[in-house]
Amino acid sequence: MVSRPEASPSEDLDQVRINTIRMLAVDAVQQSNSGHPGMPMDSAAMAYVLWTRFLRFNPRNPAWPNRDRFVLSAGHGSMLLYALLHLTGYDLSLDEIRNFRQWGSKTPGHPELGHAPGVEVTTGPLGQGFSHAVGMAIAEAHLAARYNRPGHPVVDNFTYVIASDGDLMEGVASESASLAGHLKLGKLVVLYSDNRITIEGSTDLAFTEDVGARFRAYDWHVQRVEGNNLIEVDDAIRKARAETTRPSLIVARTHLGFGSPNRQDTAKAHGEPLGDEETRLTKQNLGWPLEPSFFIPEEALAHFREAVARGRVAEEAWAAEFDAYAAAHPGLASELRDRLEGRLLPDGWDADIPEFAPGKGLATRAASGQVLNAIARNVPAIVGGSADLAGSNNTHLDGEDHLQAGNFAGRNMHFGVREHAMGAILNGMALSKAFIPYGGTFLIFSDFHEARDPAGGAHGQHVVYVFTHDSIGLGEDGPTHQPIEQLASLRSIPNLIVLRPADANETAEAWRVAASHSGGPVALVLTRQKTGTIDRATHGSASEVANGAYVLREAEGGGPDVILIGTGSEVGVALEAADILAIDNIRARVVSMPSWELFERQPAAYRDGVLLPDVTARVVVEAAGGFGWERYLGTRGRAVCMKGFGASAPAEDLMREFGFTAANVAAVAKGVLEGS
Amino acid sequence: MVSRPEASPSEDLDQVRINTIRMLAVDAVQQSNSGHPGMPMDSAAMAYVLWTRFLRFNPRNPAWPNRDRFVLSAGHGSMLLYALLHLTGYDLSLDEIRNFRQWGSKTPGHPELGHAPGVEVTTGPLGQGFSHAVGMAIAEAHLAARYNRPGHPVVDNFTYVIASDGDLMEGVASESASLAGHLKLGKLVVLYSDNRITIEGSTDLAFTEDVGARFRAYDWHVQRVEGNNLIEVDDAIRKARAETTRPSLIVARTHLGFGSPNRQDTAKAHGEPLGDEETRLTKQNLGWPLEPSFFIPEEALAHFREAVARGRVAEEAWAAEFDAYAAAHPGLASELRDRLEGRLLPDGWDADIPEFAPGKGLATRAASGQVLNAIARNVPAIVGGSADLAGSNNTHLDGEDHLQAGNFAGRNMHFGVREHAMGAILNGMALSKAFIPYGGTFLIFSDFHEARDPAGGAHGQHVVYVFTHDSIGLGEDGPTHQPIEQLASLRSIPNLIVLRPADANETAEAWRVAASHSGGPVALVLTRQKTGTIDRATHGSASEVANGAYVLREAEGGGPDVILIGTGSEVGVALEAADILAIDNIRARVVSMPSWELFERQPAAYRDGVLLPDVTARVVVEAAGGFGWERYLGTRGRAVCMKGFGASAPAEDLMREFGFTAANVAAVAKGVLEGS
Repeated sequence: MVSRPEASPSEDLDQVRINTIRMLAVDAVQQSNSGHPGMPMDSAAMAYVLWTRFLRFNPRNPAWPNRDRFVLSAGHGSMLLYALLHLTGYDLSLDEIRNFRQWGSKTPGHPELGHAPGVEVTTGPLGQGFSHAVGMAIAEAHLAARYNRPGHPVVDNFTYVIASDGDLMEGVASESASLAGHLKLGKLVVLYSDNRITIEGSTDLAFTEDVGARFRAYDWHVQRVEGNNLIEVDDAIRKARAETTRPSLIVARTHLGFGSPNRQDTAKAHGEPLGDEETRLTKQNLGWPLEPSFFIPEEALAHFREAVARGRVAEEAWAAEFDAYAAAHPGLASELRDRLEGRLLPDGWDADIPEFAPGKGLATRAASGQVLNAIARNVPAIVGGSADLAGSNNTHLDGEDHLQAGNFAGRNMHFGVREHAMGAILNGMALSKAFIPYGGTFLIFSDFHEARDPAGGAHGQHVVYVFTHDSIGLGEDGPTHQPIEQLASLRSIPNLIVLRPADANETAEAWRVAASHSGGPVALVLTRQKTGTIDRATHGSASEVANGAYVLREAEGGGPDVILIGTGSEVGVALEAADILAIDNIRARVVSMPSWELFERQPAAYRDGVLLPDVTARVVVEAAGGFGWERYLGTRGRAVCMKGFGASAPAEDLMREFGFTAANVAAVAKGVLEGS
Repeated sequence: MVSRPEASPSEDLDQVRINTIRMLAVDAVQQSNSGHPGMPMDSAAMAYVLWTRFLRFNPRNPAWPNRDRFVLSAGHGSMLLYALLHLTGYDLSLDEIRNFRQWGSKTPGHPELGHAPGVEVTTGPLGQGFSHAVGMAIAEAHLAARYNRPGHPVVDNFTYVIASDGDLMEGVASESASLAGHLKLGKLVVLYSDNRITIEGSTDLAFTEDVGARFRAYDWHVQRVEGNNLIEVDDAIRKARAETTRPSLIVARTHLGFGSPNRQDTAKAHGEPLGDEETRLTKQNLGWPLEPSFFIPEEALAHFREAVARGRVAEEAWAAEFDAYAAAHPGLASELRDRLEGRLLPDGWDADIPEFAPGKGLATRAASGQVLNAIARNVPAIVGGSADLAGSNNTHLDGEDHLQAGNFAGRNMHFGVREHAMGAILNGMALSKAFIPYGGTFLIFSDFHEARDPAGGAHGQHVVYVFTHDSIGLGEDGPTHQPIEQLASLRSIPNLIVLRPADANETAEAWRVAASHSGGPVALVLTRQKTGTIDRATHGSASEVANGAYVLREAEGGGPDVILIGTGSEVGVALEAADILAIDNIRARVVSMPSWELFERQPAAYRDGVLLPDVTARVVVEAAGGFGWERYLGTRGRAVCMKGFGASAPAEDLMREFGFTAANVAAVAKGVLEGS
């Protein structure tokens, strides 16, 4: 047996417990021969204070809705979190920690939602976790404002973050910090581990700004502490919690790889195991037994595990509070419970979705605005806004308030010109399960959007992106605003549903999918310009949007010679092209294909029924870059698409000059049939 | 004839000239029935002061290397710039302004490089122009430090920016502003048009931070002025120029749509024509003749056109200075002239590129580091760095200094954890034509990268991106760090060359392409893990990388039954799979395809020689999402690729679990041949 370190005064006990975290991290990284020991070593003390004295959670029910949220934005320090989860009694065994970063373990290299219980959000790409936390704090503020009643604060939790210098260098964090200050998110507390080391060396190489002053400029409450001084950290967290009208940044001076005699305060402590010798020296230095590895002193474990009883009591107290609330406000309580449990679509939620009469047409963004409003009236979980383009994106909810500091119950959010933060914040809100958050911007700016963040796509947060101005059809604003590769780029993201509806009624169906698809994010891709509303009496039903692609108009007089496939505003062009071909007795089937992803989910028989395998003469028309369409074109088909970037001119001129005309599509179809 | 407005005192003359700018913008937007009048109206006064009193340029030679740079980061205000270009005597006729936003005009909706002379950079996506300007200022500082000699300041120009609140809300601008402050870029002067209006309404909706305080936190020199007060603006620019050790932000209180009685200071002034009636009222309000439109008072034109003589004198003086410099420092002057004229590859630039011996192998990132160094030794134009991952990206130039405030001549840049700003800054540097800038990060972070910005791709800036850790082969860091859709996403961008070399010698050839391809950006996609170095004595030559794809190993004993196509680290897997198939007498050709884009540029005969049209049994192996590969697989082939996101485990485990083994590839090939 190893001897237990001396630890009689309570300060020594604190240090032993803190070193327990540090050494679990060191040993796990060492065992996996891969990982980041430095950050857990630098932040263990403040994390200890936070987790044992402030953070309210129930290890036996990680889904307790009123828990405080903890976000490790510096996700590379995952072992800090795994150590805390194990020690405080979550269902994460020491064997899982021994299996750190191994196939099938619950302890991946960066915290991944859905692996270890207690991980609130996937983190790793710096700046993202910070921004998700802003979304989580907004979610809490909104639910509290909407559902709490005097004497019944049933929604009441803090969101805590540990962030690194890398997090605070990233632009997405700057964007969301500015918005968090604007919104006066008083229950957001960020501990910034200011260890002054980046991967390339000292922060003096590239990061010499005054971070505290910057956050004060954002209207944050800023404090400075020594990260290893428990009294200072305790006091700062206390003050941060007491400051209810500003988010708090606690700049904690820390020491990367604290305790390692030869690596502390060096970049080498960041991203590689200490190695056998330095591990030994570190343990000696901190008065830690050299053997066994993964040593957890009994007293330390017992102390951490008090969280289990504390958590049970806290949740039980909350449950009693909730019962009292339900007795006083049964309707409200029922709605809140539904939301907290993710039942977001009440019966009849889609009853008001309009049906659009055929005719001259409507921009799909305009139809989207009407449908969104028709759904949102019945679905309080729908909350969102735009990155300063609400009027252009048609994302405003009529008759609803602005979500602002004085009025968090508002449902119209204003993100400012901050596309990337918007995406991250939407994902953060979705994590609560109580929202179907949506955000609008121009499709071109989807590049800077969270749609492409694993935290969104990979883990199935239900977020709806409203991407308007979806092609050269936006006209005069020109190439900087005209998406080319963005559609392909979105389609290439696993687990994201992309929908580009052809007309107003397809837009209505697209929103039906978007609101009810709970398995991940959905992107709606919409026109600025008008598109004709197709007469459904003589064409396929718009309800087939849910199948991804469908026969919009069958060839007349026999099996089709050629299949014309269109998406969005170019479906109308395909229909006209079919008319032109008919004059020459060429039978063209027109397929509308709003969503590749939904089409791929259909049975082969359905897919073969739409894209008849024997009809290899096919033409796609889509005013985008065309990348990837070979999947449906085969080797014989051709795409009418953009070959490079767009131009600035009225939309009709652009469509003509770039070949998106019925005459050109018909000519290309003839070329395919003639083998030219 | 219309009467000319009264204008005898010089102040009145100033106002007439300023209103000339405003009214050209109003009339052009009105004529095109599309565009943004508000910003030119709010910023005309400060732009007038800048362009007539400070900005050094030669309208008759927009390429004069020592001109000051002007960046309209708020690119939607393009008419401000076009008005100034026309008035000061650039080759931009009034007819072009009448043709604002029309097909084929030189005056697209946002300033596009290569259309109107005098446009320094494409702007429109907010925050980007600001960040490009930081790159331009770095370029100037580096060239000055490297080439100027006492008494010979031949590189000496300012970079001026007009930015909007939208620019300063965007994270990319926050990133680059922080770096600009760190680097003490004293010759960067930003005029911030603080009009307090965004598209959704007042900046009170989402942007209430103290911008000046934030920039002071970045260590900028900050002043506040009234944007229409010429004396204050003049004084502030003077002080900004005198402040040589900090970049300057001039916060100018402006009024969106200044002069429009019903739209000034409202969001409606931003992005739509004033309309006939409000145009009339505005002209009346500013004492402007109602007719003709596009009216330019003679005195105003004459005053602006003094820029022509001033510019000629300035350039002549500089040419004389340069001659004196060349006499004193002929070698240096010759090198500088080459660089200013874009001749960046001296004879023998590639002489030191190593040839790697076949054998156990090397990560392609490691090979890249060696090759980069071998080229950079001979090519002073190669300057770059990494977003805090230099050691991992192998982007460090050995024996070269850090580029820092005290030492701008250094060639190793440190961008901090700021991928997006890095991309924009590299593009800004490339605009000078004197650099082949490069930047490294992990492939996963290419999402936040300028590679996807039209300012890079569309306009052919020669920038090299070094994207390492290019697949699940990076191992334990897990899904947040493992690129899936990024390769497809990059390939879908027009005008970007993507290269994923298979081994060390392909990496050498990829760099040869990257350094010499001057038509646009190049992305190198490189492994973290080792890849075997292929024996070129028995395989196709690595020099064929320039063809995009080539026969690496021919099937033995007759024409191939199947073609195995690999890229990067999976080429080795394809080679082994071919060996396995040979045991069953299946003849497999192995094609290495490092670059789709280069392959597409080859003649059809070459392409058909590599991917024999008659051999439709094909298998692609690439540890990425597989999106788009149908182009080369046809309808029969299959891809061994990722179907979703990755996982955290050692690389070998991941490769095995996800099917990137020779046995699996061989089995898939057999399946294709058997039609199963």
